[in-house]
Amino acid sequence: MKRDGYYFGAGPAALPESILQEAQSALFDWYDTGLSILEIGHRSPSFMALLQQAEHDLCELLNIPQNYQVLFLGGAARTQFSMIPQNLLSVSADKAGYIVSGVWSSMALDEAKRVGRAYAMELGEVCQPKTAYVYYTPNETVDGVQIPAVPDTGDVPLVADMTSCLLSEVIDVSRFGLIFAGAQKNIGPAGLTLVIVRDDLLNIQPRHVVPTMLDYRVHAKHHSLYATPPVFQCYMAAKMFEWIKTQGGVQALEDINHAKSAKLYAYIDDSSYYKAMVDEVALRSRMNVCFRLADKTQEADFLAAAEACGLRGLKGHRLKGGMRASLYNAMPMEGVDALIAFMDDFSQCKQKPKF
Amino acid sequence: MKRDGYYFGAGPAALPESILQEAQSALFDWYDTGLSILEIGHRSPSFMALLQQAEHDLCELLNIPQNYQVLFLGGAARTQFSMIPQNLLSVSADKAGYIVSGVWSSMALDEAKRVGRAYAMELGEVCQPKTAYVYYTPNETVDGVQIPAVPDTGDVPLVADMTSCLLSEVIDVSRFGLIFAGAQKNIGPAGLTLVIVRDDLLNIQPRHVVPTMLDYRVHAKHHSLYATPPVFQCYMAAKMFEWIKTQGGVQALEDINHAKSAKLYAYIDDSSYYKAMVDEVALRSRMNVCFRLADKTQEADFLAAAEACGLRGLKGHRLKGGMRASLYNAMPMEGVDALIAFMDDFSQCKQKPKF
Repeated sequence: MKRDGYYFGAGPAALPESILQEAQSALFDWYDTGLSILEIGHRSPSFMALLQQAEHDLCELLNIPQNYQVLFLGGAARTQFSMIPQNLLSVSADKAGYIVSGVWSSMALDEAKRVGRAYAMELGEVCQPKTAYVYYTPNETVDGVQIPAVPDTGDVPLVADMTSCLLSEVIDVSRFGLIFAGAQKNIGPAGLTLVIVRDDLLNIQPRHVVPTMLDYRVHAKHHSLYATPPVFQCYMAAKMFEWIKTQGGVQALEDINHAKSAKLYAYIDDSSYYKAMVDEVALRSRMNVCFRLADKTQEADFLAAAEACGLRGLKGHRLKGGMRASLYNAMPMEGVDALIAFMDDFSQCKQKPKF
Repeated sequence: MKRDGYYFGAGPAALPESILQEAQSALFDWYDTGLSILEIGHRSPSFMALLQQAEHDLCELLNIPQNYQVLFLGGAARTQFSMIPQNLLSVSADKAGYIVSGVWSSMALDEAKRVGRAYAMELGEVCQPKTAYVYYTPNETVDGVQIPAVPDTGDVPLVADMTSCLLSEVIDVSRFGLIFAGAQKNIGPAGLTLVIVRDDLLNIQPRHVVPTMLDYRVHAKHHSLYATPPVFQCYMAAKMFEWIKTQGGVQALEDINHAKSAKLYAYIDDSSYYKAMVDEVALRSRMNVCFRLADKTQEADFLAAAEACGLRGLKGHRLKGGMRASLYNAMPMEGVDALIAFMDDFSQCKQKPKF
């Protein structure tokens, strides 16, 4: 088995090796139950205890107030694009404002328009009357853009797609009405979506009939066990939460994440060979560092050479091109150092005259 | 590590040990990619090849005609209860008939009524005019009931929830408009739903706007990669399809499955100590054998003693009580023999005078 090098994929993303090793064991016999974690019943006492512990750890890590529910939902986070307007638009507040900062928030707005009334907003813009919620995406993985401060929406509930940044930095959950995150960046393997929702948003009377499986109230009432949850992903999330605690918690990871991206952006800015794709420093994502080569014709060479050196998953999103180094929680500083060392070597080698 | 004994859980269910061992390896380094199967990108060439191979193997195993699409969807099968009426009810065919044979088909009918018009039907009943589809559940896991023959619905598309029987017996796919199955019985771990849908059902104009993630056409167009799929579950399904091929295909498994349940029902019917919960022989499920003790007060003892002998997961569904032995593909005949031997010992020991 070889697992040398570092994986910079944007998601599914790298996972801590210690968790992969523990999962290997759980795959055969989980906690001496005589069963694989893939076989264990979702209503068995041992799995229900795991889910409860995972919820408890997440609440501790993010300091989630008592008046919030945590839901572990099967499937991709993109389902939330429809669930949110379906659950939160009501007769008295029949429209939603969307701060569009990149590909994902734009798609969320499009989906909301299929369900009801929704409009695009600028950051800092006051929302329209009868707005049920304001939606934004603090970190846009495709564009490599982040919104540095939590928007102030007054009494209007704020909804955030934190798929690529939940648990990577300290947040004040009480400023949000609903937070959701697909698992495959900082939480575990693809196939699980976490939702953190304030109790009062579960008391809204939606405008239309919501399909039962898309109804937050149903999942909250059944403590995420209305239908069979993705048991293995819940297990992995529980392990990730434990791991974050051993790393010193979210504040410690935020510090490292800040240092990781700062070092890489600083190297890129100092180099004439590389160029950050986001100019405005405050808007640069800490999770997804997007950059190009000044000479774009050498990008394919760069990616091939990086791969050969064990630096994988650096290709930018198909919509944007270029390079993207995703620096989620599981990426150690050593990975960033290795990437910078490679970038330096590559640029010097390419800039050398060939004769 | 101990994995002695047999697991009769109704789902998540037992998986073949060889697959669990292979998955352990893939969890650390999949096919020498240097990445875990949990990290690999869903648009990477290696994963896309896996998904294509899985689809190919499934089509071969079930002899799926060319005019059907196979979808690998994230989340629980219960989402289909809403997706089916949302996608298939149209202006010209605005209602659906549901053959109610147990808990799951009854819940599917309730959900369809939330979306549009739906009515309960008896088996063999002619459906009403303008019926878009007839829905049934060939095997009901909670009730231990199966519908032995495929209902004849003429030109009206037949929709089947095969969550607990897909790949356990030979079927003629061409008789169905749509088949779906949650993974956690015969296909892999929980968190994946397979859909097999005939092309003409993708050309229906639904009555209402369907949320994008609930739209079969979207998933078909994007070959199950519209959103991030549950990569690990897709991997496990691919391994299960390979495993079924090594077992001799679906016909070979059907033969074994038939023999397994026949042996257990025969033992129960011969015994005065145990009693099958379904009287009518033709309706007895091959996948989920539900039975009681003639003396119900000894059932807790029975379950505890069975567990102590390594025969796990025999407790009946919380709605029905009693015992349930689930005999999916991964349960070998040896498991049934061990269960019968235990049942025999237990009944003789209990029937012996205590002094």
